[in-house]
Amino acid sequence: LAAETAFIDQLRALATHDGARGFSDDAAVVDLGDTRMVITHDVLVEGVHFLSSDPPQSVAWKLVAVNVSDLAAKGARPRFAMMGYTLTGDEGWNSGFVEGLRAALIHFNVTLLGGDTVSAKERSLGLTMIGEAEGPVPSRSGACEGDALFVTGVIGDAGAGLALARAPGTDDDNPLIVAYRRPQPQLEAGERLSKAVSAIMDVSDGLLIDAARLCEASGVAAMIDLDAVPLSPAYRALHGDDRSARLNAATAGDDYQLLFTSARPLPALPCPVSRIGRILSGSGLHLHDAHGPVPIPERLGWEHQ
Amino acid sequence: LAAETAFIDQLRALATHDGARGFSDDAAVVDLGDTRMVITHDVLVEGVHFLSSDPPQSVAWKLVAVNVSDLAAKGARPRFAMMGYTLTGDEGWNSGFVEGLRAALIHFNVTLLGGDTVSAKERSLGLTMIGEAEGPVPSRSGACEGDALFVTGVIGDAGAGLALARAPGTDDDNPLIVAYRRPQPQLEAGERLSKAVSAIMDVSDGLLIDAARLCEASGVAAMIDLDAVPLSPAYRALHGDDRSARLNAATAGDDYQLLFTSARPLPALPCPVSRIGRILSGSGLHLHDAHGPVPIPERLGWEHQ
Repeated sequence: LAAETAFIDQLRALATHDGARGFSDDAAVVDLGDTRMVITHDVLVEGVHFLSSDPPQSVAWKLVAVNVSDLAAKGARPRFAMMGYTLTGDEGWNSGFVEGLRAALIHFNVTLLGGDTVSAKERSLGLTMIGEAEGPVPSRSGACEGDALFVTGVIGDAGAGLALARAPGTDDDNPLIVAYRRPQPQLEAGERLSKAVSAIMDVSDGLLIDAARLCEASGVAAMIDLDAVPLSPAYRALHGDDRSARLNAATAGDDYQLLFTSARPLPALPCPVSRIGRILSGSGLHLHDAHGPVPIPERLGWEHQ
Repeated sequence: LAAETAFIDQLRALATHDGARGFSDDAAVVDLGDTRMVITHDVLVEGVHFLSSDPPQSVAWKLVAVNVSDLAAKGARPRFAMMGYTLTGDEGWNSGFVEGLRAALIHFNVTLLGGDTVSAKERSLGLTMIGEAEGPVPSRSGACEGDALFVTGVIGDAGAGLALARAPGTDDDNPLIVAYRRPQPQLEAGERLSKAVSAIMDVSDGLLIDAARLCEASGVAAMIDLDAVPLSPAYRALHGDDRSARLNAATAGDDYQLLFTSARPLPALPCPVSRIGRILSGSGLHLHDAHGPVPIPERLGWEHQ
C-alpha cells in the first residue's frame, strides 16, 4: 500500500492543470471552447471490482454506471464514452457484455464513440466518460464548519450483495445482489444538487472512507450519527441494524450514492436523502450513535482498488 | 480470431453516432459546442504490445505516442489525456513509468487530467486522448481511383527493433530498438496533410494490413511498389533490401507513420514522404517490384492485438 500511495503521489505531481483537480476529485473539469467538459475514467478488473461469476451483462452495466456516478457527483450530463476492452476468448461472455453495454448506454443516454480491443489474460475493462456541465462544477473540497452532511438513498446494500454473490447458489433476483451488480447512480439528484451543495462526491469505496476523503479535501472534520445512516429493509432483514451492522454498511462500498454537505435548504430530490451528520473544524471523522461515541473502525472502506 | 471478429461486429452495432465512424477509423470525431473534438483510446498490454524487458519509461512514452499518432492521422492537436493504470507492486517500474509519462506529456504538450489506478495481476495500460481539430477531419475512407498512395518516414525499423529487443543482450541505443520503443508520431505532418489528402490513417499494425484497411474502408484497391517502400540505412544494414526483407518491413507493424492518398500536390512536410503506389478500382492489394508481381503474403500484419 505504501508503494501505491507513493505512486499516486508521483502521478499527482503531473496534475499541473487546474481542471485535473489534483487527481483528488471524482472527475476532471475542463473548458473546451464554450463547453464545460467533465471527464472521468474508471477501470474494472475481474476478481477485484467484479466476480468471475457476475453475469457479463451486469459487468457492462457497472462499467457504465460507475462512470456515470462520477459525473452525477459533478452535476454533469453524460454524453460520450470510449472503452478499452480485453478479449479473453470467451465468446458467450463477450456477447453478454455487449448486450449489457447496449442496455446501459441507452439507459444513461451515452454515445459510445470508440475505443480499443486487446488480447489479454485478465479482464480489465476501462471506460472514459465525457459529460457536459453548465456553470460552476462542485468539488469535494468545499465543506465548511457548520454544514450538514447528507447522503442519498441507502447504504450497505451492495456490500451485503457482494457477500451473497460470493457464496454458492446465488439468487440473481435478490435485491441486495441486484444492488451490488447494477448500481443506480443518482444522476438527476446530482444535477439538482450541484448548485445547493458546498461539497459533493459519490460513495464508491465506503461511506466512512469517502466521508474521510471529503473532510480531508475540505480541511474539516465530520461528526456522523451512525443511527442516521440509511439502511434498506432488505439489509435490516439480513443483518439487523445494531452498531455492528451499521458499521459494516458504512464501510462496505459500491453504494454509488451521493455524499454532500450544505448549509442551505435542499432542492426537491427524486430519491430519499438522509442527514447523517455535520461538519466541524479540525480533521478526521467522529462517530456516535444512541449509545454514545463509536470508536472509529480500523478499516473505513476500500483503499486503492 | 473468429470470436474476436464476431465481438467487434457486435460492438459495431452500437456505433450509431456518426462521430464514432463505425469504430473503423483511428479516432472518433464529435462537435461539442463550437469545438471539434477528436478522441482516441488505446490500450497496451504487457506481453502483447510491449515486452516485460522494455524500460517502463519507454512503455509510458509509447502509451502516449500511439494515441498521439491516432490524432496525427486526423490532423488534430492533442490536448487532454485520461489514464487507466494497473498497479502491480513493482515500485521501480511504477516510478520509471511516471518519469517516462512526464517526459511524453511535456513533449507532446498533453495535459493529464486524471484516470484510475487499480490493482491487477497483468499490466494493462489504457489512455484516452482528446484532441482538437479545425474544419473537416479526414478519414480513411476517402481514397479514389487514380490517387497516389504515400507513406511518411521509414517502414520496418520498429519491427526489426522488436526482434532485437526480444533477444538477450539488448543494446538500448540501437536505433532500431529505439524506433520500436519510442515511436515518433507524425503530428506536424498530419496537421499539414489534413486538407490535402483524400484518405489518411496511421500505420500501426503493418503497412500492408493498414493499406488493405484503407482500401476496404474506401471501397478501392491499391497497387503497391514494394521497391518504393522506404527503408532506413539501419534496416538495410541488418536485413538488406531484397523482396523478402521488404515484405518483412511492410508487415511488421509499430511504425506509427502516416499512410495517405491524394491526387493533389502535397504541402511541404517536416519529414520524408514516399510515393509507394496508386489507388485502383476494385478491392484488395496488388504488389509488385522490379522483378514483377509479388504474391500477397498470407500475413499482412498484426490482426486485433
